[in-house]
Parts: sequence; structure tokens; C-alpha cells
Amino acid sequence: MSITPSDRIAMSHAIKIAQNPDVPLGPNPRVGCVLLDESGEYLSQGFHRGRGSDHAEVAAIKNAKGDLTKATAIVTLEPCSRKDRDSDCTRAIVSSGIKRVIFAQRDTTPRSSGASAILEENGVEVIDNFMQEEASGINPWLSIAMSQQRPYLRLKIASTLDGKVATASGKSKWITNDLSRSYVHKLRRESHALLSSIRTANLDEARFTARGEDGLDFPEQPVVCLVGSEEITSNHPIFDNERSVIFFKTHDLRQLLQNLWQEQHLSVLVEAGPRLSTALIKEQLVNELLWFTSSMIIGSDGLDAIGNLDTLKISESIQPHLKSHEG
Amino acid sequence: MSITPSDRIAMSHAIKIAQNPDVPLGPNPRVGCVLLDESGEYLSQGFHRGRGSDHAEVAAIKNAKGDLTKATAIVTLEPCSRKDRDSDCTRAIVSSGIKRVIFAQRDTTPRSSGASAILEENGVEVIDNFMQEEASGINPWLSIAMSQQRPYLRLKIASTLDGKVATASGKSKWITNDLSRSYVHKLRRESHALLSSIRTANLDEARFTARGEDGLDFPEQPVVCLVGSEEITSNHPIFDNERSVIFFKTHDLRQLLQNLWQEQHLSVLVEAGPRLSTALIKEQLVNELLWFTSSMIIGSDGLDAIGNLDTLKISESIQPHLKSHEG
Repeated sequence: MSITPSDRIAMSHAIKIAQNPDVPLGPNPRVGCVLLDESGEYLSQGFHRGRGSDHAEVAAIKNAKGDLTKATAIVTLEPCSRKDRDSDCTRAIVSSGIKRVIFAQRDTTPRSSGASAILEENGVEVIDNFMQEEASGINPWLSIAMSQQRPYLRLKIASTLDGKVATASGKSKWITNDLSRSYVHKLRRESHALLSSIRTANLDEARFTARGEDGLDFPEQPVVCLVGSEEITSNHPIFDNERSVIFFKTHDLRQLLQNLWQEQHLSVLVEAGPRLSTALIKEQLVNELLWFTSSMIIGSDGLDAIGNLDTLKISESIQPHLKSHEG
Repeated sequence: MSITPSDRIAMSHAIKIAQNPDVPLGPNPRVGCVLLDESGEYLSQGFHRGRGSDHAEVAAIKNAKGDLTKATAIVTLEPCSRKDRDSDCTRAIVSSGIKRVIFAQRDTTPRSSGASAILEENGVEVIDNFMQEEASGINPWLSIAMSQQRPYLRLKIASTLDGKVATASGKSKWITNDLSRSYVHKLRRESHALLSSIRTANLDEARFTARGEDGLDFPEQPVVCLVGSEEITSNHPIFDNERSVIFFKTHDLRQLLQNLWQEQHLSVLVEAGPRLSTALIKEQLVNELLWFTSSMIIGSDGLDAIGNLDTLKISESIQPHLKSHEG
């Protein structure tokens, strides 16, 4: 059965509800789902409200009243079907009796095992890539990550007006203000992984947790990845809440990101020192640069936020696209 | 005759009209004037519309119809009485027959010869410092300049995100974008003097003129002051429009500013290289810092916007008060 006008309207609506402003931008992708009956009449809808809550398809199925055996599910993202999980949306769709699934964006993340084949094996008709372009804007970070087949990488830098991250003697704490710090906790919470170096972890005694306005850790935390071969003591505050910390001795940053990608860590926030930040810029691995500037001046003997890039002309300088943030 | 309620209402009104949003913030101070008859009835008002137009008192006198011989002039700033000029507001007041003058803020700039004494010699009653605090907010830069008895100094810096003003090879042109450039022309136009170094003038081949959106020079230009002992050729574009350029060989920046102050250059905009900018910051001569950040990164081998300040702790860093500007 080909696409009907009702399917198109339903997908537009699914795209809209996926972007409910109360839903966090990450780490889970935002997804919307609408169920229609065989005559194209609206049955129910659902959207994912973020980590720990029902996926969009499951929410829509729960919200539906009555028989779904001839229903169509319209979803913004290919239903999940994870090799590493016992239950997923693909199985929920099959169990519900839904006979037709139309989805927009394909899931090409490493642990996706391809819902389409599983659905078709179970007698469900599948139409994919429908309104894929419109839907790709729901989770821009995920669209970029899937197209490059490595994690979406956000680099956070907090410098003084004159581009320094520490005094000559290494003092760096509290360069950014309270507002940007609370914004950083939001960024951490949205990310699958937080990348830094053992050097920075030791210097700043950073815990690298995502905390709320009340100063308490959120229940779900990004995985922490530390690069380097320095020592780190087992009583470092990073180990305080028994979370997983991954250590990388490699200097091959592409390989490191590839490893994170394979582990389904799809978005990475980097909070590191000048060495790692500079290397990521040089390797052109940065998708989004978040530069916080404090109203301080340290002077030229301070530590530069970014190391040597061998820029000869202004036109050769790195010119990131800036998002405005009031700091 | 002491202050009446009408005088107070008139001064509030004079303060309000002085700050008409169409009046430029400089280089001339904004001034408002209200004339009252002997029973406190409103006669006329006037405000200064910027360089080249009537002063507030002259405008109010021109706007008045009928006899002023028993009138009171309420002015936000002490009427001008310049040793170096043939006509001024003090003489205009005396000629008009006005018998009483009430002003708010005293003029303590170097070329003021004190209107009060001249007015009193001519039989005019004078009340000064009336609502002085309210009026001092009309021209904050002038109030600061008069209290410190040196020019109000604005330091403009345009750097990359990482605080560089040029590549290692000295390339610096067009670090800031068009919007900030047009804002800089507004700043130049508001200033009495533009301070830079011969080094910067030579490097950038800068004309240092205030230009409009059409790219043409405004008729009135700030005086250009260049510091340094380098050579500058007579065909340098700075000499293009036959304006006055003052050269200073001194490294005594306080003396330099004192010389400008004595010449009635009450506000100075600095557009210079790291050397002069750093020296002014170190000498604590900067009243306002205007830092433009472009969305570029040059890397640590670029030229630092600010030189060595010997900052050991973050708490010792310079922490200017920031005004927001969308760039």
C-alpha cells in the first residue's frame, strides 16, 4: 500500500510532537510516533520524553484503545532493534499486531540491527526514508553523527577575554561564571560520554558529573573517558559515585572516537585542556564549539586556550559557526 | 530667591530632554535647558543636538517669545564660558536679560573659566549644584572624566576567540566583522581624540576616520594622536583629509592624557596594538573596555591581544565590567 495523504499528515504531526520543548535534546534522540487505523483515522500518539521513559512507539501503543491489527505506525526514526537488548520497539510493534510501519530517518548507529528486516520477517509492511529530510532536523547531532559514522563531538572551552585558560602558575578554577557552569551541567546531561584527559582530571580535581541547580548529581550520568598515560589515584573524586570511567592510552583520536561509537556512545562532550582541545581542532573532529568567555584578562603569560595551529593568514584561521549563549 | 517647586520640576524636565534618544552620546555633552518666567511659568526649552548645533541655553533663548528680563534659566550643566572662544552661553544669557540661573553639574573641564562668577558680575543670580546627582547620569563619561581630571578613556580591542589580534606573520586585517566595524565608526565619532601608535598606523595603513554607512568620512573627525618614535611617511593615508594629527614621543601615558585633557580632549578612544593597550591596562587608565570577539581561532603562535600582566592568581586578573554588544 502506497503513502496516503493521512500518512503524510501523521508524519508531520509525529515530527512536531517529537520536538516537544520539555524533552531534553539528548542523550537519547527525540522521537515521535502516530498510530492510524486502516482507513487513515487517528488512533493515538506518543513521543519519547528522554532517558528512562517509554520510547515513542511503546508510548503510542500504550495510548491506543482497541484493536491494532490493521493499524499503521508512523515514526520519525527507525524503530529500535538492539542486538544488546531483550526488549525493543520492533518487538513491541510486532506483538501489538500493527501491520504497517512508515518511518522517516534510518538508524545507522552501530548497535542497530535493522528493524525493517525483522518487521518484514514478521509480516509487517515497511516504508522507510519517508519525509526523511524533515525528520533529520529533529536531532541534528544524531543526523551528523550517523552521516560521519562517529560520535557527534562538542568541544567546550572556557577562557578569559584574552583567550587564556589558566595563569602562568596553572591556576584555572572558576574562570567561567555560575550561569555558564549551570549550562555546562545541561550539556553534560545531554551527552553520552564526557571526554577529558587524566592531566585535566588531576589538575582540576574534576568530578565530571552532571549536576542540577541543587548541586546534586543527576541519576543518569555520561560515561567519562580520560586520555593520557599519567597516574590517577583511586581516591580521585571522579570515582566517587562508582560510575564507569574509560581510560585511553592512545593518541589516535579518530580511533578513540571510533571505539566510543562502537559502544553506542553517540555524542561526546569534551572538557579538556589546551593539548587535547587543540589536537581535536587540528584533526577536524569538532562538530560544535562552545566557547565561554569570562570578563577577565590574564595577560600573555597565561596559558593559551588553543595551542599552535600554524595559522599563517587570517583566511586560514579556524572559523567555527557560533551559537550565541548569554554568559 | 531660593529654589521653588517649579524650579525642581523644570530641572527634572531639562534632565529628561537632554537625553533625547536622537542626540549622540558625544563628543559634546548632552545638555537640557528650561526657561521659566518670574512666577515659575514655563516659557521655553532647548537641548543640545550634538556638535555643530546650538547649545541648550541658546536654543531655549531662541525658542522663547517675549521678554526674558525676569526669567530663570534651569540648565543641567554649568553654562559654557570658554577662555578660547568669542561667544558662549554665559554671554548669551547675560545679553538675553535672564536674571537667575540654576544649574546642576559644575563644568570642571580645563577650559571652563567658570560661568558663575561672570554671571554674578553681570547681576545674574546663580544657584549651582542643584540636583547635581541626577544630572551627572546624563553624561556618565564626562562625570568620570571631570572627577578624575583626565580624559575618559575607552579601549577597543578586536580579537579572535582565542584572544589573538594577528597571526604569527602579523596579518590582522578584518578580524572583526562588518557590524562591529560600523559600531567602531560610531565610537570614533563620539570621541574627542583617537589614540593609537605609529606602529599600528603603519601596520594597518589605518586612516582612523569616523565613517558613515556609505563609507564616507563624517564632516567632524576626532583628533588623531599617535605614540611612538617610529617613522611615518607623509603620504600615509592618515594625512589624507588634512586633519590634525598629534605625535607623542613620550612613554609617560599619564602625562600624555594630561596633555590631551588640557587641550579639552575630554574623551579618548584607543585603537592600538597589544603594547599600548597592555600599558594602559597596567597603568589602570582604562575607563571602559570594548572587546570585540570574532568567530575565528588562530592558535597560540598568533599575537596576543594583551601582553604580560604578571597575573599569578585568577583573583588578580583584570575583571572589567562588561557591556554587552551583539557582534
